[in-house]
Amino acid sequence: MKVKIDGKTVDCRNIWMKSQTINMIDQTRLPFEFRVHKTNNYRETVEAIRKMQIRGAPAIGVAASYGLAQAAIEFKDLEIKKFWKHLDEVTREFLNTRPTAVDMHNMVKRMLGAMKQAETSHQCVKIALRESQKIAEENAKACKNIGLLGRNLIKEGIGVLTHCNTGALGTVDYGTALSIIRFAHYQNKKFIVLATETRPWLQGRLTDWELTQEDIEHYIIADAAAGYYISRGDVQIVLVGADRILSNGDVINKIGTRTLAVLAHENNIPFVVAAPTTSIDLNQKIKNIKIEERDSREITHVKGYNEETQEFQILRLYFTDQVKNPVFDITPAKYVSKIVTENQIIEPPYNLERQLKNK
Amino acid sequence: MKVKIDGKTVDCRNIWMKSQTINMIDQTRLPFEFRVHKTNNYRETVEAIRKMQIRGAPAIGVAASYGLAQAAIEFKDLEIKKFWKHLDEVTREFLNTRPTAVDMHNMVKRMLGAMKQAETSHQCVKIALRESQKIAEENAKACKNIGLLGRNLIKEGIGVLTHCNTGALGTVDYGTALSIIRFAHYQNKKFIVLATETRPWLQGRLTDWELTQEDIEHYIIADAAAGYYISRGDVQIVLVGADRILSNGDVINKIGTRTLAVLAHENNIPFVVAAPTTSIDLNQKIKNIKIEERDSREITHVKGYNEETQEFQILRLYFTDQVKNPVFDITPAKYVSKIVTENQIIEPPYNLERQLKNK
Repeated sequence: MKVKIDGKTVDCRNIWMKSQTINMIDQTRLPFEFRVHKTNNYRETVEAIRKMQIRGAPAIGVAASYGLAQAAIEFKDLEIKKFWKHLDEVTREFLNTRPTAVDMHNMVKRMLGAMKQAETSHQCVKIALRESQKIAEENAKACKNIGLLGRNLIKEGIGVLTHCNTGALGTVDYGTALSIIRFAHYQNKKFIVLATETRPWLQGRLTDWELTQEDIEHYIIADAAAGYYISRGDVQIVLVGADRILSNGDVINKIGTRTLAVLAHENNIPFVVAAPTTSIDLNQKIKNIKIEERDSREITHVKGYNEETQEFQILRLYFTDQVKNPVFDITPAKYVSKIVTENQIIEPPYNLERQLKNK
Repeated sequence: MKVKIDGKTVDCRNIWMKSQTINMIDQTRLPFEFRVHKTNNYRETVEAIRKMQIRGAPAIGVAASYGLAQAAIEFKDLEIKKFWKHLDEVTREFLNTRPTAVDMHNMVKRMLGAMKQAETSHQCVKIALRESQKIAEENAKACKNIGLLGRNLIKEGIGVLTHCNTGALGTVDYGTALSIIRFAHYQNKKFIVLATETRPWLQGRLTDWELTQEDIEHYIIADAAAGYYISRGDVQIVLVGADRILSNGDVINKIGTRTLAVLAHENNIPFVVAAPTTSIDLNQKIKNIKIEERDSREITHVKGYNEETQEFQILRLYFTDQVKNPVFDITPAKYVSKIVTENQIIEPPYNLERQLKNK
């Protein structure tokens, strides 16, 4: 992605690993401060995911993959049985950080599958390093292809509504829904993006930051204002990402997504989901999906920037702690107009198991 | 309304006038500080409405009525022609503070109509004082009746979703939608209220405060989480107020209301609007309604409470000022299940001109 630093525009990924250090753009500091957070061992990586210094379904999957490589390095002198005992524990730790998104499950499964081929701990390390780099590369490439495949969904002059941050900051690079926006912009099309602020965590701040780096015209709106703009005819497409897509086309994504789908349906505009195939879960049934509820403090308190002291601060917004904070919801397939993956644009009726094979 | 102060519960109105001072509960300090703001002349009252120290369609109508009485006192020694020239200017000032709600228009019209009967400035003052007190009394009574009439819409054990603050803090006393909640609670029914936080201004903080005073079980949720709870079957009624209701049943209310109506409709639960008849506008067509857009700072900055210094502070949330902040939307009558006024519960098909006569 493009990042403007001191007046220059440079190219930068959201997450990358060099020797055993994982580098990630710290999303708890944006949009006010561009800082690369470094983790030197898997514990710090688990912590970074928990604190949402890195977030977004594909990005945390890559972080966990790199994190397993860090763990493998740490355990490299253990004999293979002990190595695996420790690694399995670390795997559980990663999978427990954020339960809803499926990319981490898919990527971790791939890491373990590859490492299982090895006979010694040292071989495991080698494979873990190679496989995690491959996973990261493939995610960046998939996201680029989503943008290239989907860009023609954005027509000249339209209004695009997007939710949460689905940009490079949620992936290794480019993003998912935001990759489509990015590549439509590279075609020199003019259009306006309405980006919801996405309470409670305000991922709209990240979307604002990314679109600003690219000089894409956009406005932040309150989540509750989305219906107003859709009903007035100011929006011609709703474009979101996904944390998990089931075989029947049901989409688990950021809280509020389902509402946008209902509003798009009511106003006869397409509701399009963009996600790499690593976000697709062919095995799970909707009834088994666990919706993550996060700390009430995400609602009762807010982090912002004090313009006088130029420091970050946390303020209390609510008197109460009686708060409910589910962070994902489920959009039924009947409201999903298209699913854009790196390989194809899938349309209803959804049977993703079959449709993925027919690509 | 009940207010807990130093462990005691006292009865308190939201706004009242004594000699020429208007007293209002300062809503920019709640929920952290209970403070009565006093205005001693109409200029200060205009300013208090602009700053949203008082808000809510009926409450700002009453504030403007009292404010006209303050102006009349100030102009009492002018000869009658000059008196009216000045008073007309003040009237325009009040009407320009907040353009969307209709109560202020209705109440101000009534004030001017009554004062027009007078021949001298001194008579005008007398009438203004009496009429503004009557308007305030009638609003309190109307809101109480809304609660009494509507309370049986809330059944034992249900989930009630409400938006914005429709409580005593938006009226003279009791509230509109929240009056229904209040009087259902007085019937000793158990139910759970989900209150949206209502970005950007976070009127949910006020609702939280009022429900806390009354010990009514409630949870604050992000605006985007409403659809999640409705779709899960946790909500059996959506209950909102109104800033203006047109004769055909279209409802202008806080941004996000329309979305809740669409979601209620999708999930087959009633969407009920509670408002005094002063909020009904029989003369206007939807195309002439002006939707107020407020300062982008309401979104880009947030006011909260610093728990360390125990002071209010303002933090910047966004990097950008590219923000759109419409604060009302229009809910088509087709989504409105019932309208509860102080006199009756009105059902579709709506022809309010006829239905108000048939009360």
